[in-house]
Amino acid sequence: MHRVVSIALAMSALSVPPRSAAGPYRQLQPVVFTEVKLSDSFWLPRIRTHRAQTLPHNLALCEQTGRISNFAKAAGLQPGEFEGIYFNDSDLYKVLEGCAYTLATEPDAALAARVEEIVRLIAAAQQPDGYLNTYYTLVEPDKKWTDLPVKHELYCAGHLFEAAVAHYRATGTTTFLDVARRLADHIDTVFGPGRRSGVPGHEEIELALVKLYEATGEERYFNLAKFFIDERGQDRDPQAEYRQAHLPVREQDAIVGHAVRAMYLYSGVADAAGYTGDPELIATMDRIWRDVTLRKMYVTGGIGPSAHNEGFTQPFDLPNHTAYAETCAAIGMVLWNHRLCLLHADARYADVMELALYNGFLAGVSLDGVRFFYVNPLASKGDHHRQSWYSCACCPTNVARLLPSVSGYLYAHTDRGIWANLYAASEARIPLAAGPVRLVQQTDYPWDGRIRIAVAPAQPAAFVIHLRIPGWCAEPRCLVNGEAVDGALLHRGYLPVEREWKEGDTIELELPMPVRRLIAHPEVRSGHGRVALQRGPLVYCLEAVDNGGAVRGLVLPRNAPLQTAHLPELLGGVTVIRAEGLSVRAADWAEHLYREAGSAAPVTLTAIPYYAWDNRDPGEMAVWIAEAPGLAEAGVID
Amino acid sequence: MHRVVSIALAMSALSVPPRSAAGPYRQLQPVVFTEVKLSDSFWLPRIRTHRAQTLPHNLALCEQTGRISNFAKAAGLQPGEFEGIYFNDSDLYKVLEGCAYTLATEPDAALAARVEEIVRLIAAAQQPDGYLNTYYTLVEPDKKWTDLPVKHELYCAGHLFEAAVAHYRATGTTTFLDVARRLADHIDTVFGPGRRSGVPGHEEIELALVKLYEATGEERYFNLAKFFIDERGQDRDPQAEYRQAHLPVREQDAIVGHAVRAMYLYSGVADAAGYTGDPELIATMDRIWRDVTLRKMYVTGGIGPSAHNEGFTQPFDLPNHTAYAETCAAIGMVLWNHRLCLLHADARYADVMELALYNGFLAGVSLDGVRFFYVNPLASKGDHHRQSWYSCACCPTNVARLLPSVSGYLYAHTDRGIWANLYAASEARIPLAAGPVRLVQQTDYPWDGRIRIAVAPAQPAAFVIHLRIPGWCAEPRCLVNGEAVDGALLHRGYLPVEREWKEGDTIELELPMPVRRLIAHPEVRSGHGRVALQRGPLVYCLEAVDNGGAVRGLVLPRNAPLQTAHLPELLGGVTVIRAEGLSVRAADWAEHLYREAGSAAPVTLTAIPYYAWDNRDPGEMAVWIAEAPGLAEAGVID
Repeated sequence: MHRVVSIALAMSALSVPPRSAAGPYRQLQPVVFTEVKLSDSFWLPRIRTHRAQTLPHNLALCEQTGRISNFAKAAGLQPGEFEGIYFNDSDLYKVLEGCAYTLATEPDAALAARVEEIVRLIAAAQQPDGYLNTYYTLVEPDKKWTDLPVKHELYCAGHLFEAAVAHYRATGTTTFLDVARRLADHIDTVFGPGRRSGVPGHEEIELALVKLYEATGEERYFNLAKFFIDERGQDRDPQAEYRQAHLPVREQDAIVGHAVRAMYLYSGVADAAGYTGDPELIATMDRIWRDVTLRKMYVTGGIGPSAHNEGFTQPFDLPNHTAYAETCAAIGMVLWNHRLCLLHADARYADVMELALYNGFLAGVSLDGVRFFYVNPLASKGDHHRQSWYSCACCPTNVARLLPSVSGYLYAHTDRGIWANLYAASEARIPLAAGPVRLVQQTDYPWDGRIRIAVAPAQPAAFVIHLRIPGWCAEPRCLVNGEAVDGALLHRGYLPVEREWKEGDTIELELPMPVRRLIAHPEVRSGHGRVALQRGPLVYCLEAVDNGGAVRGLVLPRNAPLQTAHLPELLGGVTVIRAEGLSVRAADWAEHLYREAGSAAPVTLTAIPYYAWDNRDPGEMAVWIAEAPGLAEAGVID
Repeated sequence: MHRVVSIALAMSALSVPPRSAAGPYRQLQPVVFTEVKLSDSFWLPRIRTHRAQTLPHNLALCEQTGRISNFAKAAGLQPGEFEGIYFNDSDLYKVLEGCAYTLATEPDAALAARVEEIVRLIAAAQQPDGYLNTYYTLVEPDKKWTDLPVKHELYCAGHLFEAAVAHYRATGTTTFLDVARRLADHIDTVFGPGRRSGVPGHEEIELALVKLYEATGEERYFNLAKFFIDERGQDRDPQAEYRQAHLPVREQDAIVGHAVRAMYLYSGVADAAGYTGDPELIATMDRIWRDVTLRKMYVTGGIGPSAHNEGFTQPFDLPNHTAYAETCAAIGMVLWNHRLCLLHADARYADVMELALYNGFLAGVSLDGVRFFYVNPLASKGDHHRQSWYSCACCPTNVARLLPSVSGYLYAHTDRGIWANLYAASEARIPLAAGPVRLVQQTDYPWDGRIRIAVAPAQPAAFVIHLRIPGWCAEPRCLVNGEAVDGALLHRGYLPVEREWKEGDTIELELPMPVRRLIAHPEVRSGHGRVALQRGPLVYCLEAVDNGGAVRGLVLPRNAPLQTAHLPELLGGVTVIRAEGLSVRAADWAEHLYREAGSAAPVTLTAIPYYAWDNRDPGEMAVWIAEAPGLAEAGVID
């Protein structure tokens, strides 16, 4: 799945001296979500469901659970005690961030009014010195900043910054951003060189401070992000692996502890490195990325196998039934790999981003938009289902903010180049030095690998369009105005097309999507004798409802041909994979320890995209499918 | 592999009232080894090697390691200290038992003289009160009978009794038996009702006292065996599971602890129940037997997966690479199941006896007779080999006594019936009430399932010959004087042929031996996605030397046809199994966590009988063969 790109190649950019502190070292700039308008049949319907269902649902739940009134209480506008968990402010911020992305793509006066109302409450809850955290204000006003490893003051602040920046970009108003600045300024008076040391137990503020810096130009925020990164792990407490504080970041070489925390930390580190070019941080990112993607990642892009620490265990420990693979952690993989892709202009990171986005993340929300997985197993006995809410509501609210921002992950650019990272029917405006370029993409991706891109610069201009050739695609073809592009030009996973572009130029890219049988590294016990199916970016699973009511006992022999069919009526329209497999008869083992292998009956297997499971009748599910009858008879999916 | 015989059926004999204490309750009497003369090409060559190599080797090693001189020292005939481990006397006794069986089947003046010489030494070492144990006499003369749980005085005594009885049956002289009686009489003055309580830490004396009772008619010996069985576990020490003393025997319902100890205990229990008909002991045997054969037995008949306690762990914990499966424990399975078969006249016990004999036990000794496995894994990386001796020499010396006694396991009888349990070319004399019957068996078993038995009673007589139809045989055919026997008569695994027999009558039994693909119970992790091959009573394995130097990476798809070929020059003459399988290319996983399943190359797999492995170039070995490429790529045989 991952390209074999030599590290030397990926790291060669290190010889380029860092630009000025104000200018980014990272190779690419994202084309932000406001500049890309989706028109596709995959994401757009999900985003419309998100607007119609997920956001109102999240707002209603935030209301019902006191997450909004906590601010009114902290502002003295309403009597009563703090409700919920000490990090509940963050959930509201994440929903507001989702509202902002949504408002940016389509006006909605009612939603906009509701957002402004909540922002006013938040502003009212801010204390004169800029401090803002309703738990501490209402419950432990004298204990501010006294329990960084456990409580989540800096984490909540980070989510406030992210929401405020999104609000600012979406609305152009600074009402929320001003709150963020006051809080950031306050934190900057408390923490930093010569002031108080300390790092958050749950990372988030690092990447958020960089965002705030980008939105405001205030270098103090960037420096504070760097401070939190550099301070981390300085006391080398081996017990602090859970929060990645066991070693200084520059010395870390394996991913450990809580998966979401790790993702947020390394996203912040990638951001910082994008401005400083710090070779030690970049080398750390590379070690950590290899550790995750070569030893600790599910085939869905999910991470963190264990419920015990919501995080990492041993290399290759990737059980299926008991997979934790928190939705937030898959979101973290999207965030981090997007940043690494921008940093290095290397498509291998976009490969992982795409994998986590279409699979590990997208399974986290039901097709109707109002039920959510916190935990994403790769196999189920039929007893694992999405819920409408969780007392720890990080996942529903994280879904609420990621889904409407998907358009921001499609493209990146430099002054004279465009990078296409994800494919979806859309219209984009990309600001190059020579002027803006309009790209109109037509495709049925991810169901079909044929992509047509109409290129329309404001005036004819020479630039390079770098087309990502996904790692899963073995035989891409590309025509520009009907002429073939040399595939040998492929570099870091991108096919560069360099020419003087003019309106009317057309790229035809074809990414054939044969079904791929994936096998896992031999050290992954849960994959032994099993295959996973992938087509395009989508990982598939067997669900009981399509397979005669059971998944246990089904066998997909190595040599069985795999057919596909697109079913527009099924699950919002999906391509299914069918194969002639075997069904092993349930045997009575009561009087046997060993017995003669029975014959298995032929049966048609039907696999659906993993993201779409648990949207119909409950039942067994498995991503990893047995290739041998004995395994299916064992019924062991782990 | 096991017949589905209802327990109600097997236990129905319980309604028969026990016979007198002196007369056996057990259904069948064995036809003793002196009455069956092998002429086959499977066992006889092994027994000749045993006589020519194994026995001299064992005697020489006993000599070199002080196991013989310990007796001379204890007798005051030679100066010096005790050498070796406190239970070393038992090894010499076991070798002497093997010598006795050997002398009984073929005269050997030199061996006989050597045996008598050693017996004289043993007699000389016996103390005036009958006590006999060279360790205590030489090392701790004041500590006799003070450490029953750990030291092995009663265990050594038991092996002396067994050797003495064998010597008596082989030679007709009582020189050794008299020593045994004096020791047994002495023990009987120390232990028993109203005397000292206590049970041996390592069982053995129970079954040996019954043997001594059978040879001498002295009921005190039988009562003492019963005493040791009834006393066992009375203090209900949960820590005593290792030696099966955690519960009274009648209350035990799972096999625990040290495997050899358990086998010896339950052999003694089966012996005792054979005389008393004690329904509680019989019910215990049934529970324990089901626990072993349905949850804790390797497909080879070996038992005791763990080196930690040389014994049992959890149900279905049957790892392959780390299998302990001590040779002595497989011998114990032979001994115990033989007794259960005699007790119940039920072939399911003979099935297990045969399995353990041809596989778990027979692998314990090299084809050249002078190297031995203590531990019998079902998979090897090529680093497990037989050794010529062990400081704890229980296995070589146990091989030395079991192999030459094989002829004693072929037949059993009642007054008017013959039971054929094992098949081998041989001539037997079986004492029925109507007079002796001569049976001449011709067969190439276990390579061929065609068996011809010429029946020759001294004069025409009505009796029943019960032919065991092995559990592995699905379609047996039987003719008597050319006429078909009704297969529906099959009862408890035996096909009974009742008629007035006269000289010249001939049985033609055909037990077809297609290769069977065995799968393991779903709870047996080490069997997932794997099959074991069995043909007739023999379990097979892949050995590197026959398979291009490696076993890892080989796949035997479920649908691959299996061919057999008999190769007279290979490994003393074996039938091999060949199949068109797959060989998975060694893949480079360094840069992959998941990758597309590669194509596997066709390759001819060759399997040999498990008992014959590790007799040629060292290399990998596996009994359980992967059915799917992914498993083979994993290279995990456990």
